[in-house]
Amino acid sequence: MTVSRDEVLAAARRIDGRVRRTPVLQVSPTLAFKLELVQHVGSFKPRGAFNRLLSAKEQGALTGQGIVTASGGNAGLAAAYAARELGVPARIFVPRTAPAPKVARLRTLDADVVQVGNEYAEAHEAAVAASEESGALLLHAYDQPEVVAGQGTLGLELLEQLGGFDTVLVAVGGGGLIAGVATALEERARVIGVEPELAPTLHRALEAGEPVDVQVGGVAADSLGARRLGALAFDAARRYDFGSVLIAEDAIVAARNELWQDYRLAVEHGAAVAYAALTTGAYEPAADERVVVIVCGANTDPATLG
Amino acid sequence: MTVSRDEVLAAARRIDGRVRRTPVLQVSPTLAFKLELVQHVGSFKPRGAFNRLLSAKEQGALTGQGIVTASGGNAGLAAAYAARELGVPARIFVPRTAPAPKVARLRTLDADVVQVGNEYAEAHEAAVAASEESGALLLHAYDQPEVVAGQGTLGLELLEQLGGFDTVLVAVGGGGLIAGVATALEERARVIGVEPELAPTLHRALEAGEPVDVQVGGVAADSLGARRLGALAFDAARRYDFGSVLIAEDAIVAARNELWQDYRLAVEHGAAVAYAALTTGAYEPAADERVVVIVCGANTDPATLG
Ligand SMILES: Cc1ncc(COP(=O)(O)O)c(C=O)c1O
Ligand SMILES: Cc1ncc(COP(=O)(O)O)c(C=O)c1O
Repeated sequence: MTVSRDEVLAAARRIDGRVRRTPVLQVSPTLAFKLELVQHVGSFKPRGAFNRLLSAKEQGALTGQGIVTASGGNAGLAAAYAARELGVPARIFVPRTAPAPKVARLRTLDADVVQVGNEYAEAHEAAVAASEESGALLLHAYDQPEVVAGQGTLGLELLEQLGGFDTVLVAVGGGGLIAGVATALEERARVIGVEPELAPTLHRALEAGEPVDVQVGGVAADSLGARRLGALAFDAARRYDFGSVLIAEDAIVAARNELWQDYRLAVEHGAAVAYAALTTGAYEPAADERVVVIVCGANTDPATLG
Repeated sequence: MTVSRDEVLAAARRIDGRVRRTPVLQVSPTLAFKLELVQHVGSFKPRGAFNRLLSAKEQGALTGQGIVTASGGNAGLAAAYAARELGVPARIFVPRTAPAPKVARLRTLDADVVQVGNEYAEAHEAAVAASEESGALLLHAYDQPEVVAGQGTLGLELLEQLGGFDTVLVAVGGGGLIAGVATALEERARVIGVEPELAPTLHRALEAGEPVDVQVGGVAADSLGARRLGALAFDAARRYDFGSVLIAEDAIVAARNELWQDYRLAVEHGAAVAYAALTTGAYEPAADERVVVIVCGANTDPATLG
């Protein structure tokens, strides 16, 4: 399965007006931040969610049964937000271990939150079963073509907003974002994945020659803790030849603090990982290389900053 | 004394490369935020500070004695930052009552912090005396032509960044920012001042027909708590015919929380005041009126958010 650039272009038309066109901060002549943290519900995830829901709607597959998904994180927030905006119900499966504030936040977005099992795998299975039973649309957090194409609209915006750039640094969880961005850019710029050492799904998939289950943990696990790279992301990595650099825990924490101290950007750990590739030297750009860092989310407790 | 638009244009050339060109978030077809909180040291104040210091440098008035100023807030941070960037010493007078974290932060920027008296008026007198004695350049927080012209560069950026707009909402303390922005716009858009009810310097100056001392307090006092409107701001208010709307304390707090909840912008109270003019209806734009809100600072304890 492959997502084409045309699908990303179609996604941009489809979700126009539903998502914010997030601004770019030019930090220096060679460094820019894409400020995706100011997106609705605090991350890029509504791009993919709206594209999935609106595509289904065009095909008559978005019924009064609404949608189901499994995620207590940014994908769940985006699903609940997009469903509410489109006037359909959202049922969101999360493990019993999901933190109470996240569950509460989903409920403020009118989602029906169902707590089941102890792991996301179980929540996911329950979502699939509920979809098959009720006819509700299943929304995946990263491994559906419409989701990947929706996330790719962020890459199209970069092409429009910047006069040109050489490299974009992208945090990787299940790989929906990086797959979409790479597809949108289609070799117009280099794409570098960045992952926590403790959640190296892309790294391990490339080593193994296929997506494999990975032990995940660490400070960024709530956003980058997908257990296995998506098949679409693996296909994109092969097609566009991107890999990932790995970041240690303390460097993620330090980069997050720097984003607050130097730029007053209050971001979640997962959204500091790409920047950490620069602060640590894990990725070392050439002197005149124009680099973009995607600052992708801010669903964080601000009390842990500063 | 009057500041001309040419002085703002000259300031823009002078400080180019020293300050960040801060991005604009288009929130809706009729509402945009100027994200000045991502400026160096977290507020717009470096614009004025650099213009004052670099103007003096051109005239040989920036010597090895460096600069003196009185401010424990954003103006002090900007002064310290600009002086350090230009390689001259900064002596900053603050009252003995200045909070320890602010003093510490000034010291991390290599400033020589002098604590004197119990009020800013005393710190200011000490700064003036030190300047006269040592020949160090005196930097005022808002009432010097170069400072006003420097703040005005933010208005020029808006003209370049937006295809056109009708109204800009600006928080007012001593009035340097609003005076600069109004001068930059020179009637190309309407300028509306916004002040806390508890710090109504512009409001009272217009009532009295001249700047007068005002009792100031409230949640935004550390940024908008100048005791008296600057003479340059009063001149600009007359020339460009702007006044201010007043905002209650609880509305400032609520607007600040909304900026975090809805946009993941962690701002200080003074930087939420302009947005509060919309959320409270203190300023009610027409249906198709294109409004810009200046989100002007983020020197805040993030633990007080969310
Ligand atoms: C803030 C943030 N950044 C990055 C990612 C990773 O996205 P993906 O799973 O598409 O690789 C996520 C996923 O939830 C996220 O929430
Ligand atoms: C964040 C912020 N906003 C607004 C102002 C008001 O600026 P002015 O004193 O130029 O009116 C200040 C002044 O310190 C500030 O720090």
